[in-house]
Amino acid sequence: MMPPNMNSSLPTVGLIGLGAMGGGMAASLRRAGFTPHVFDVRAEVAQAFAAEGGHACPDLPSLGAACDVVISVVVNADQTQAVLFGPDGQSGCAAHMKPGSVFVMCSTVDPKVSVDFERRLNALGLHYLDAPISGGAAKAAAGQITMMTSGTDAAYAACAGALEAMAAKVYKLGKQAGAGSKVKIINQLLAGVHIAAAAEAMALGLREGVDPHDLYEVITHSAGNSWMFENRMAHVLAGDYTPLSAVDIFVKDLGLVLDTARSSKFPLPLSSTAHQMFMQASTAGFAREDDSAVIKIFPGIELPPASR
Amino acid sequence: MMPPNMNSSLPTVGLIGLGAMGGGMAASLRRAGFTPHVFDVRAEVAQAFAAEGGHACPDLPSLGAACDVVISVVVNADQTQAVLFGPDGQSGCAAHMKPGSVFVMCSTVDPKVSVDFERRLNALGLHYLDAPISGGAAKAAAGQITMMTSGTDAAYAACAGALEAMAAKVYKLGKQAGAGSKVKIINQLLAGVHIAAAAEAMALGLREGVDPHDLYEVITHSAGNSWMFENRMAHVLAGDYTPLSAVDIFVKDLGLVLDTARSSKFPLPLSSTAHQMFMQASTAGFAREDDSAVIKIFPGIELPPASR
Repeated sequence: MMPPNMNSSLPTVGLIGLGAMGGGMAASLRRAGFTPHVFDVRAEVAQAFAAEGGHACPDLPSLGAACDVVISVVVNADQTQAVLFGPDGQSGCAAHMKPGSVFVMCSTVDPKVSVDFERRLNALGLHYLDAPISGGAAKAAAGQITMMTSGTDAAYAACAGALEAMAAKVYKLGKQAGAGSKVKIINQLLAGVHIAAAAEAMALGLREGVDPHDLYEVITHSAGNSWMFENRMAHVLAGDYTPLSAVDIFVKDLGLVLDTARSSKFPLPLSSTAHQMFMQASTAGFAREDDSAVIKIFPGIELPPASR
Repeated sequence: MMPPNMNSSLPTVGLIGLGAMGGGMAASLRRAGFTPHVFDVRAEVAQAFAAEGGHACPDLPSLGAACDVVISVVVNADQTQAVLFGPDGQSGCAAHMKPGSVFVMCSTVDPKVSVDFERRLNALGLHYLDAPISGGAAKAAAGQITMMTSGTDAAYAACAGALEAMAAKVYKLGKQAGAGSKVKIINQLLAGVHIAAAAEAMALGLREGVDPHDLYEVITHSAGNSWMFENRMAHVLAGDYTPLSAVDIFVKDLGLVLDTARSSKFPLPLSSTAHQMFMQASTAGFAREDDSAVIKIFPGIELPPASR
C-alpha cells in the first residue's frame, strides 16, 4: 500500500507519550500514512520525532484541539488523569477536544478508573476507548502490538483505522470501558506470577547444582514452560539485568491486580505472594533493574555472571 | 522402517506398570520391534497387552530374570521401592536381574531417593538410569514422550535403543542419578504453580464479569500465556473435570518440590502457596478430579457448566 501522506480521508491523530511503546506506535502511524501530532513532556523528543514527519505540539490543549483521535500512551492512571484534565481541568487535552472526537487510553489502570474516564469524557461529548496494550518496544515499532479494547460502536468508528495501523491484533471485549482494562490486569497477574515462578524455579535449580542452561533447554520444551520463563530466564542466563521492563512495573501492576480483587473481597493467594517478592526485590535495591532481577531475592545461590 | 520382530540384536526389554503412560510406552517399544515383557499388578491388563505381542510376566522376579533393560513406570518412590525390592528384598525384580542389565526409573521422585536407588543397584552389579518422563498419555502412545535422564555412560549403553523407541527427546543431564529427577521436580514446580495461577486468573475474570472465552483467547495470544494455562483452562471452559492428571498428583509433586528445598533450607514462596491451594482443593472434595479443579477453591464465582 502506498502511504497516502495527504489522504484527506484519514483523521488527524495525536499521540501523547513518546516512550518505548508510544514512540514506536507513533512511527507506525506515520508509516501507515497518518501525520501524527505528538506531545511528550520532553519537548526535544517530540521535536526529534516530527523532524521525520508529523507535528510536535507545544502543549496538550493544542494537541487536543487539532486531533480527531487522541492516543494516550503514558505510564499509569495518574499520568492519564493529568493528560486529560491537568491540575485545573483545563490544561489537559479533554477540555479542548472537538465534539465527536475520541480518546484512546492505552495505559494499564484499575478498570474502575477507566470506567470513570469514560463517564467524564462522554459528559463532554467525547468518545472514549479503553485500550490497554501489550507486546513490548519491538512490536510497537513494527506496528504489531496487541490491544485489549472495549467501548461503544461510536468510539470504535471514531478511531477510523488508527488502531489497525499500530496493532497486529485488536481484541474487542465489550461495549463499555473497563472490559479491556480487566483483561489487561489479568494478563499482568499471570505475567507477574510467571516471572516470579520462573525465578523461583531457576533459583532452586542453582541451589541444587543443576546446570542452568540445561534447565532452560528442558523447561522451554516441556509442560512447565511459560512465555515469561522463556523470555526472562534468558536474561538471567546472560547475567543481563538491563531493564526492558523494571521490577517496579510489577510492584505497580500486581498492586493494581490486588486492588481490583480487594474491592470485591476476592482472594488471590499467588498474586499476593508474587507481589511480596517484587516488593522485596525493589526495596533490596533492584527496583530499576529488569523484572527478572526478582531472582536476586533468593539467598544461597550464585547467579550466572554477565556474559561479556 | 520394517519392524524387525525377531531381531536378535535387540535387547530384551521389560516394562512394569501399564498405566496411562506405561501402556503407551510398552506399545511404542513393540511398534519399534522389541518384544516387551510386561508386568502390572492387574494381571489381566498385562495379558491383554501380550495378546497383541509381547510376554505377560506372572511376577517381578521372572520379569527381572528375563530382561536386559527393565523400565519402571509406576506412580511414586514407594511403588518403585516395592518394584525393586519388595517387602523382603527378594520379591522385587532387582535380586533377579542379570549382572550388567539396567533399571530405568521413570517416576517422579525426590532426587535423593533416586541417588539412593543408583547406589543400591550398583552394589548389586546393576546399572541404573534416572529417567523421569513427561508428555501425557497421547505422547506416550505415539512414542513421543520427553525423558529427563542422568546416569553413567554404561547405563546409557545398556539401554541400547529402548529410550529412543519411547521418546521424542532424551535429555542427558549428567553422569549421576539425581540430575534427571531434579530437573523433573523443577518442571513440576512450574507446572503446579502455573495451573494454580491459571485458575486464579480465570477465577478473577469470572468474578469481574469478563467473558471466560474472550479471556482465554486473549491470554493464549499474550505474554501471560503458559503451556498449562492453554491446556488446563480449556477443561474449565468445557466444564470437564475428568482427571487426565488429578489434583492429588500435585499435592504429591509440589510436596516433593518442597521436601527437596527444605532439606537445604531454601525458600519457595510460590510453590508453597500453590501447594496449599491444591491441598485445599483435595480436602474440599476434588482430590480425584482433574488438577484444573483447583479453581473450585475460589468462592463467589460461577464456573462454566459442562458443555454437554
